[in-house]
Amino acid sequence: MNNNNYAVIMAGGIGSRFWPMSKTSYPKQFHDILGVGRTLLQLTFDRLKNTCPEDQILIVTSSAYKSLVMEQLPGITESQIVSEPARRNTAPCIAYAAYKIGNQNPDARMIVAPSDHLILKEDAFVKTLESALSLTEERDCLVTLGIKPNRPDTGYGYIQFVDTEHANSPFIKKVKTFTEKPNHELAQQFIDSGDFYWNSGIFIWKVSSITTAFETHLPDVSKLFVEAQEQLNTPEEETAVKSIYAVCPNISIDYGVMEKASNVYVVLSDFGWSDLGTWGSLYTHVKPDKDKNAVIGKNIMLYEASGNMIKIPDNKLAVIQGLEDFIVVDSGDVLLICRKHDEQKIKQFVNDVALEKGEKYI
Amino acid sequence: MNNNNYAVIMAGGIGSRFWPMSKTSYPKQFHDILGVGRTLLQLTFDRLKNTCPEDQILIVTSSAYKSLVMEQLPGITESQIVSEPARRNTAPCIAYAAYKIGNQNPDARMIVAPSDHLILKEDAFVKTLESALSLTEERDCLVTLGIKPNRPDTGYGYIQFVDTEHANSPFIKKVKTFTEKPNHELAQQFIDSGDFYWNSGIFIWKVSSITTAFETHLPDVSKLFVEAQEQLNTPEEETAVKSIYAVCPNISIDYGVMEKASNVYVVLSDFGWSDLGTWGSLYTHVKPDKDKNAVIGKNIMLYEASGNMIKIPDNKLAVIQGLEDFIVVDSGDVLLICRKHDEQKIKQFVNDVALEKGEKYI
Repeated sequence: MNNNNYAVIMAGGIGSRFWPMSKTSYPKQFHDILGVGRTLLQLTFDRLKNTCPEDQILIVTSSAYKSLVMEQLPGITESQIVSEPARRNTAPCIAYAAYKIGNQNPDARMIVAPSDHLILKEDAFVKTLESALSLTEERDCLVTLGIKPNRPDTGYGYIQFVDTEHANSPFIKKVKTFTEKPNHELAQQFIDSGDFYWNSGIFIWKVSSITTAFETHLPDVSKLFVEAQEQLNTPEEETAVKSIYAVCPNISIDYGVMEKASNVYVVLSDFGWSDLGTWGSLYTHVKPDKDKNAVIGKNIMLYEASGNMIKIPDNKLAVIQGLEDFIVVDSGDVLLICRKHDEQKIKQFVNDVALEKGEKYI
Repeated sequence: MNNNNYAVIMAGGIGSRFWPMSKTSYPKQFHDILGVGRTLLQLTFDRLKNTCPEDQILIVTSSAYKSLVMEQLPGITESQIVSEPARRNTAPCIAYAAYKIGNQNPDARMIVAPSDHLILKEDAFVKTLESALSLTEERDCLVTLGIKPNRPDTGYGYIQFVDTEHANSPFIKKVKTFTEKPNHELAQQFIDSGDFYWNSGIFIWKVSSITTAFETHLPDVSKLFVEAQEQLNTPEEETAVKSIYAVCPNISIDYGVMEKASNVYVVLSDFGWSDLGTWGSLYTHVKPDKDKNAVIGKNIMLYEASGNMIKIPDNKLAVIQGLEDFIVVDSGDVLLICRKHDEQKIKQFVNDVALEKGEKYI
């Protein structure tokens, strides 16, 4: 294991499309969504331990979740938790982590990974990371992991790559364009063309490469962190970062850096990935019964029900009859029933709930 | 108010078609099903107070529910609760009450009423009872209240009457036949013919008439109670009744007496009656929203949902989208989702739950 390897797990999201399981007070990454005995955050941490020394895995999260992280990852020290004073999307989050790591180790190589994704083939994932890390040593570049699309999903970002072979690997490609959330027709064209992959949101780069990229493409952001260099990794960090976040723009790493940089590469990957972005995506990862119901819960009795995604607390009995292609989720204080193909509306429901019922249920 | 008037409220049922609200441990009659602030048992008691002295209203129930009855009817004395040691259907229950009342007052007139029905027009109900009570003074007869059918319901008993005018009232008719739960075709024929009414299960008779009828049509049952006459209304009653119930047949008053007797009359009634036998029958008594959803609960948000019957605890939020003509009931530890027109299957579900999960949920 290379001692320059660092990982940054982004664990500040609230996963509103997974409501009512995922709530502001207890977001998706802290749940054992799949019922495997480990939460998504724990699984992400476990996975990255194969590539990075444990004490070089940082978790960036909202200060509100700090105690949840400590509880779920009891082996880490408090200094591994990077607390964001506000939610400012991925660019400030990554900049903060990058400057903080660079301040400790200018030769650091950094893996950025969301905390709430599913990866089934761990070995393939580790190998993919290794080739991406090698590439970052070979040249000054920004690497993203691309996932072969299996459907024209309109919820993902698409990466178009240049189809020329890299000397070391047929899976390493130069990126041509990024397209965020295309419409269905365009998504279908992307898939048909064969030179578009999904953007997994997992990035690999040397700290020096990403900070250079920030300086070029998001100078406002980088300036704030460069000026605070002396405070990072000191007791003054918290105050300094609070000031930075107060003025820092809300912008994604894709929009702020990746789409603008010319040195971006993609590693074409196949490690059984899902962003578990919605109930429907979870549906495809739970073994269905003979009527294609994906059921999570110990006391669920179904009659004339098919194609449903059902999650009920273990101590509750559900008797469900006559339902077809629905999502049914009981989180204790909230019951959600929604047609599976309308699951994109869940975000809207959550907004409505916030407006009508306040913060209590979200 | 006539001091010979007694009422017997039958409150021993478990209301399994109303599961999961109605459970063995807390059956339907003890719930404020309609959200009016009084339980069905309380409403029944309130209604009968117009016709009978309060201390002459008996409540027959299983000994398991005795404390629930005392709690909900704090004005009664313990002697008004007639505890059945086992469930033996309506004939033994009514025989027990009849012999017990006859033992106190041989001139008693007796109203028998289920504890879990809905009656909207109280004045009309009181007047109907009065004409039925007069009829019982006029001749030795058994009177039942008939309800004008508004749909070919296959869950009810039908009373065919002889269409000759009674001297005192056009609403009093001699009964020709009883037909329990006809199939749909037959039920439709009954309705088309105009001389069939629903059997409400509310009976009026002199105690002497019903005990005579028991002696004629169910001599096995009457013999048991006649032999125990000296124990009734004494400290020995409980032991005596325990022995009676151990050998008493399980039989309904309709099958055991009413269908066989030749002196049965029906009072054609219209007092806004429902037996609230199923969720669907409740649906017709809850004011629907503009999309015909009948909703009981304070935190229910509906989207593209119509024709549903939804009951959710007040402190729980439900967001329901895309559902049409369903019953959705959350009772805390049980969630039921069932197509409205399949509600007759709920009884089956309850049986299955008992077999698979034990008594806990039923």
